[in-house]
This record gives sequence, C-alpha cells and structure tokens, in this order.
Amino acid sequence: MAVSGSARYFEDYVAGTVHELGSFSLDEAEIIAFAKKYDPQDIHVDPEKAANGPFGGLIASGWQTAASVMRLYADNYLSNESSLGSPGLDELRWLAPVRPAEAYSVRATVLSTRRSGSKPDRGLVRTRTEVFDRQGTVVLRMEAVNFIACRTPEVSAGHI
Amino acid sequence: MAVSGSARYFEDYVAGTVHELGSFSLDEAEIIAFAKKYDPQDIHVDPEKAANGPFGGLIASGWQTAASVMRLYADNYLSNESSLGSPGLDELRWLAPVRPAEAYSVRATVLSTRRSGSKPDRGLVRTRTEVFDRQGTVVLRMEAVNFIACRTPEVSAGHI
Repeated sequence: MAVSGSARYFEDYVAGTVHELGSFSLDEAEIIAFAKKYDPQDIHVDPEKAANGPFGGLIASGWQTAASVMRLYADNYLSNESSLGSPGLDELRWLAPVRPAEAYSVRATVLSTRRSGSKPDRGLVRTRTEVFDRQGTVVLRMEAVNFIACRTPEVSAGHI
Repeated sequence: MAVSGSARYFEDYVAGTVHELGSFSLDEAEIIAFAKKYDPQDIHVDPEKAANGPFGGLIASGWQTAASVMRLYADNYLSNESSLGSPGLDELRWLAPVRPAEAYSVRATVLSTRRSGSKPDRGLVRTRTEVFDRQGTVVLRMEAVNFIACRTPEVSAGHI
C-alpha cells in the first residue's frame, strides 16, 4: 500500500478507500526519551511511579502516538510532490493506553475529498485514522484534513 | 503562573481563568531531528527543498508544535499528583507555520469543568489552548480535555 516511488495526487484519494499504513512499536527507552523532552509526566517518564499510577505501567505520551501515526502517513499515505500541509484535525481521541513494545497498526479511510474553491491547484482530503492494538481494539482515532496538490489543475469555466 | 511545587487539583481549575504558560522556540536542528523520526516530509527535513516549497522555508511538523505545547502544559498547567490523562481534543488547527528560532507563547483558557458522573474521584477540564507568534498571530489553536483528580472526592448524596 506504500506509494512506492510514484507520487499520489489529489485525484488519487478516493472517498471510501481504506489504506492500511503499516504498524509501529515504541520501546520503553523511546517513550521515556520523547516524554522527557515533550511530556514529562510520571506516567510517561518514570516506570516505577507509572507502575503505581492510574495506568498500572509506563505509557506513551499521546503526542508520541500521534507522531508515530504521522510517520506512517508521511511514508505510506502522503507524497512529497503533492502534500501541502494540514489545516488541522477534529475529534482526536486517545481511547486506550499505548504501552512499550506492543505493535500498533494504522488504518486510514478517505472520508471525503473536494477541490479547493479558492485555489484551483489543490484539494482537501478528509481522512479518518484509526490505530489498533493486536487485539483489534482502537487505541486512537482522529479525523484529519490535508491539502493535496492536484495532478491536473481544474480549468476554470471562464477559460473554456 | 507555574504550579511552583504545590499541586493543582480539579477544584483549582476555574472556568474563564486564563493561564499564560510561557513560551518555546525550536531551532532548525531540533525541527529536522524530530521530523526525521516522525514526519519526514521535505518541508520539515530539507531546508533547500523547503525554501522552494509551499512555505518558503523549513517549518516545524505540526506534531512537534503540539508536543511543545504539551511540555508547557506538563510544566505549568497540569500536576503529576492529579493528572489522569486525556481522552482527547477537538478542533486542532494549524493556522500558520512555525519557523526555526522564533519564539511562540502559549495561553490556556479554562472553558468548562465538571465532576465525572461515573468516577467521583475526578473531574473533566476542557481547555482552549492558543499559540501566538511575536506579532500576536495565533499559529495553533485546540480544545483539549483532561481528567484531573479532585482534592476532595464528592460525597454521594446516599451517604449524607
């Protein structure tokens, strides 16, 4: 499902399509290193305190989980040739803890696409992303929007 | 405005209160290091290609910006003694690029608070977070929810 050298443009994102983006795993050292810099709460940086805390063990910062999703997005969903950034996302939900050394798989479903009204060189793609643990439980869910360049800019009616 | 050694509990989050959480800055090396691991798009990892790209220069991954906000949250808004994680956030918006070596300030406004209906030891705090550049332009905005332990668990009516 990777882009495999051929760039993906706006026209290639089709509503309803499901893309399996691969999986990621974070080891304890990675979780602690990220959290020491960005999210130094005991549940993310101190295995001993975390073991006695609300999650019964060390868990990844939710931001590291989201960033790990982004990595698979960048590798297997977006293309450098067409990715024009993101205006944002809605309804990000951290539904279950992400723990060290577990494998999590990422699925992207294209919800909708539309050409930009103001910029004819691009479109907006809305994607639901889900992260699953090995048991199939959804641990993260969100809906992100991306600006994607069109392969063929729309010809405005005035010029036809 | 930092917590300064004294833990902040659910009762200390008051709707309408504005908390200035401080500021952060990301240098080019930090932006590239983060992006190489989590968001390896040209606009985040390749200064030369980024200069000729849609933003006219290298910009931070939106996830690094969000994680940098989290750091100020952890240091100056949440407390290890009471923070019980986050179920998620709504309407995250990346409104303008975050560039190397610029200073960005973070403001948290408590939007609403309510005791949990099912777990009397905690409450939910909804916070609007805004990140400003030096000119006062909002570059990121989001509404996050946090579970926060109560200092005084509510006594249920059945026990009075």
